[in-house]
Amino acid sequence: MLEQIDLDLRLNKHEYRQRLVDLQTRLYHMEQALFEARVPALFLFEGWAGAAKVRTISVITRRLDPRGLRVHSITPPRTYELQYPWLYRFWLKTPSYGQIAIFDRSWYRQVLAERVRQEVTVADWRSHCEDIVAFERQLADDGAVILKFWLHISRGEQGRRFKKLLGDKTTAWQVTEDDQWQHRHYDEVRDAVEDMIARTDMPYAPWIVLPATSAHYVRVAAFDAILNALEARIGRPSLPDLASREEMLDTSGVSFRRGLDLLRTGGARPIPLPAPHNGASVEASSPDAHASISPAGVSVLRRVDLSRKLDARTYDRKLNQLQAKLRLLGFQVYLQKRPVVIVFEGWDAAGKGGTIQRITEKLDPRSYVVHAIAAPTGEDKAHHYLYRFWRRLPPRGQIAMFDRSWYGRVLVERVEGFARPDEWQRAYAEINEFERQLVEFGTVVVKFWLHLSPEEQLRRFEERQTIPYKAWKLTDEDWRNREKWSQYEQAADEMLLRTSTPAAPWTIVEADDKRFARIKTLRTLVRRLEAELGKVKL
Amino acid sequence: MLEQIDLDLRLNKHEYRQRLVDLQTRLYHMEQALFEARVPALFLFEGWAGAAKVRTISVITRRLDPRGLRVHSITPPRTYELQYPWLYRFWLKTPSYGQIAIFDRSWYRQVLAERVRQEVTVADWRSHCEDIVAFERQLADDGAVILKFWLHISRGEQGRRFKKLLGDKTTAWQVTEDDQWQHRHYDEVRDAVEDMIARTDMPYAPWIVLPATSAHYVRVAAFDAILNALEARIGRPSLPDLASREEMLDTSGVSFRRGLDLLRTGGARPIPLPAPHNGASVEASSPDAHASISPAGVSVLRRVDLSRKLDARTYDRKLNQLQAKLRLLGFQVYLQKRPVVIVFEGWDAAGKGGTIQRITEKLDPRSYVVHAIAAPTGEDKAHHYLYRFWRRLPPRGQIAMFDRSWYGRVLVERVEGFARPDEWQRAYAEINEFERQLVEFGTVVVKFWLHLSPEEQLRRFEERQTIPYKAWKLTDEDWRNREKWSQYEQAADEMLLRTSTPAAPWTIVEADDKRFARIKTLRTLVRRLEAELGKVKL
Repeated sequence: MLEQIDLDLRLNKHEYRQRLVDLQTRLYHMEQALFEARVPALFLFEGWAGAAKVRTISVITRRLDPRGLRVHSITPPRTYELQYPWLYRFWLKTPSYGQIAIFDRSWYRQVLAERVRQEVTVADWRSHCEDIVAFERQLADDGAVILKFWLHISRGEQGRRFKKLLGDKTTAWQVTEDDQWQHRHYDEVRDAVEDMIARTDMPYAPWIVLPATSAHYVRVAAFDAILNALEARIGRPSLPDLASREEMLDTSGVSFRRGLDLLRTGGARPIPLPAPHNGASVEASSPDAHASISPAGVSVLRRVDLSRKLDARTYDRKLNQLQAKLRLLGFQVYLQKRPVVIVFEGWDAAGKGGTIQRITEKLDPRSYVVHAIAAPTGEDKAHHYLYRFWRRLPPRGQIAMFDRSWYGRVLVERVEGFARPDEWQRAYAEINEFERQLVEFGTVVVKFWLHLSPEEQLRRFEERQTIPYKAWKLTDEDWRNREKWSQYEQAADEMLLRTSTPAAPWTIVEADDKRFARIKTLRTLVRRLEAELGKVKL
Repeated sequence: MLEQIDLDLRLNKHEYRQRLVDLQTRLYHMEQALFEARVPALFLFEGWAGAAKVRTISVITRRLDPRGLRVHSITPPRTYELQYPWLYRFWLKTPSYGQIAIFDRSWYRQVLAERVRQEVTVADWRSHCEDIVAFERQLADDGAVILKFWLHISRGEQGRRFKKLLGDKTTAWQVTEDDQWQHRHYDEVRDAVEDMIARTDMPYAPWIVLPATSAHYVRVAAFDAILNALEARIGRPSLPDLASREEMLDTSGVSFRRGLDLLRTGGARPIPLPAPHNGASVEASSPDAHASISPAGVSVLRRVDLSRKLDARTYDRKLNQLQAKLRLLGFQVYLQKRPVVIVFEGWDAAGKGGTIQRITEKLDPRSYVVHAIAAPTGEDKAHHYLYRFWRRLPPRGQIAMFDRSWYGRVLVERVEGFARPDEWQRAYAEINEFERQLVEFGTVVVKFWLHLSPEEQLRRFEERQTIPYKAWKLTDEDWRNREKWSQYEQAADEMLLRTSTPAAPWTIVEADDKRFARIKTLRTLVRRLEAELGKVKL
């Protein structure tokens, strides 16, 4: 999903300057409040070489009191560090209660390198991810606020930046061998990053992907995310009404010194935290605490080019061809005894039903089943939300299509408040665990988001109102959902980012034109199945 | 640690009968309260073949309303069940909100068999344990109460029971091939069980080991644990003042029917739970909610034979021999670049210091370091409790001895209230994760509990009071701790059960006789090091 991120988000210089002062001041006060509350914080900056991690960190820390802060630049381990278990050196760098630790690269540096360069076995790689999850959970349970940033630029942008740096003798040294290697293997690294995020994205230590083409944008977005996460934990400190920055500094000096004395005399115990897990503490705070953690500006959906169309003749030709291939692939699914799960999510009236129909039209009716998922009833309602999907899983050799799915938890249930914030926030990890178990069993998992413009949706709603045989499809609820378009868009964006993995990727389908949408869906499906089951010939 | 459990715990028939009626009545009312509160519960019964799991389940369920209850007997998967991911069939058996599911064997049946019969790779086995942890956490987060019982009998007892069953034609069929295999491989299975418990023992789904030699005892203890766990979650239902059991049944019939109607009409949503994780909810309830989960009667320590002694002459001879071997092994530690961690825990005045001194006496002083762990100070106090142990880990090729250790979290911090219940409860999993990382890195982990009788401790305290050069060792705190003997004993018992693994086992050292204690410690250490580094010859 990373390739879909809107990397063009910018902020003009004037707006940036205006916001920067405010953000720096707020973080400065937050730093003191954090110290008083004895809450430790860890902010990790990972990202592409050339994405300007260091400059971003520098702007964020510039106005902070250095006594409350440590910046750690993580290089490969020294010889003496290899004498200890691998997380040893990171434990030593955990912040004291009340301090902020900022990591320029982190423990993820190693797992990313291992995965991309295939230095360790898959089992060992997973075991390292487990170590990380345990490490971060232990710190979070102990009260730490943890945010993990991925600074994202495109391959082209990375190339341009390298070229510029290399063209100047005084900056050429900044582009290392390693960086060049990364650039040549951009796609593999991107896959590894998605996998790493899916395995380690937890409510108590979330990943935040920041588009980093614009330096102004990435700084403001990082500030926002940090401030929101800290406010969610300890509340908003009251800003003193000060005339000058100098005065502020003096005040803080006193406060810090008092704190340090307290620490030295050993008089203070860390304050007890509201609840061991993040879910609960977010719940206790403002309702939009989490939402604002993922910067509102980052949208993969706004980038989708909805003008794509297909003429009727090409459509007919391609449809016939793809359906014929699908029929053969359906037979292979049966022969090779592989289960297949296809998920359809998307806006109301985006054409999910019609697309599914085009898929099943020529399939052997014994080879597939379609589950239309509405609100749970009966025993499904009396169980864990994943229960009704576990019981509808296809056996080996069968295809199951889900017209809406478990993703309802982080879409409709989130937006409509049917799930509590702690419930839908932990659902990303639960869904990743669920799909991982399917994939490890050998299931082919394919997921489509059918994307529509609000204008086209309106046109289709009105059409449904006027055409009698389509009228039953349109309910009052559809109109109500439409009013919450931007909330649904935000939920879908976050879902796409947090649950797309190389083994169970999302495909966004441009669905303003039905013909285009159907062909893209069928083509994607044929390609995925061919990749898993082998090519078929007509 | 399982071999140390006191399997002789009994209950006489009269006492059993008296308690049984009360327990059955309480559970019956609890079943209704659970249903009204829409809280699901899962009780798993695992254990040795011949430990009478089924009869135990039968006594527990006999007086319950069958409509609120399902008993699942788990056999190896059917052919059709093999068509799905392995947890599929267990998801289908999860209880509805408000229902109790009792499992005669469970998802642990498979992982235990895989581990003992080496049917899968170590990596796959771990991955299955991970699946289980995710499964149980998802259910617990959704509000389920989960308890996992291991019914424990000795190898000899198992043999006697098999013999009795096999001697009678009408019961001989009950002893399967599998059961006989298990009996022949008792020790390997016991190791596998310890490993399984260490990997899957979580505050939200704890393992409870029940000595099952006495049928009366195991039933009452299981009842106790179930009632305590349910009361900790939903409180104690008020018992109606009823004349007869018949009347009770009628009342409940109504209540159940009302509940079922509610379910059928789909009117009820599960009530929101107090907190997503168990830690918090236990904290919210009575302080001894957790303590009573591990049945008070189960003590590994009360079984220790403290009368064991060694005469001075044998002591001198053996000490010389073992110290000479240790010196050679210390050199091997250096040559083979293996880190070694030795933990000493035990009662005040149990002789930890003296024992450590006998270990180090002949060692190369460059090869080891001793950390005496008292209350944390300075930066240790301002970090996660594991931080101070991470930073004191030995590098490759060095031995680190800890005179008291991270286990303080579940001993002194638990008993003295320095750690909150949710903190020390999650510490078992944290410590197991910590030691697992050490072991996977190649560290040799050896742990000793020096055990003392209260009488011998008193004698030593009084001796310290009268002998001037020993007086500094005795503080007021020692006397205070002595008054909490039984609380410390309970904490130590639970620690030994929850944190002993084949890779990082506990050794209980009988320490009433100092000579015996020192020789046993040195001998155990020499054996462990020889097993890891190869035998040494004098």
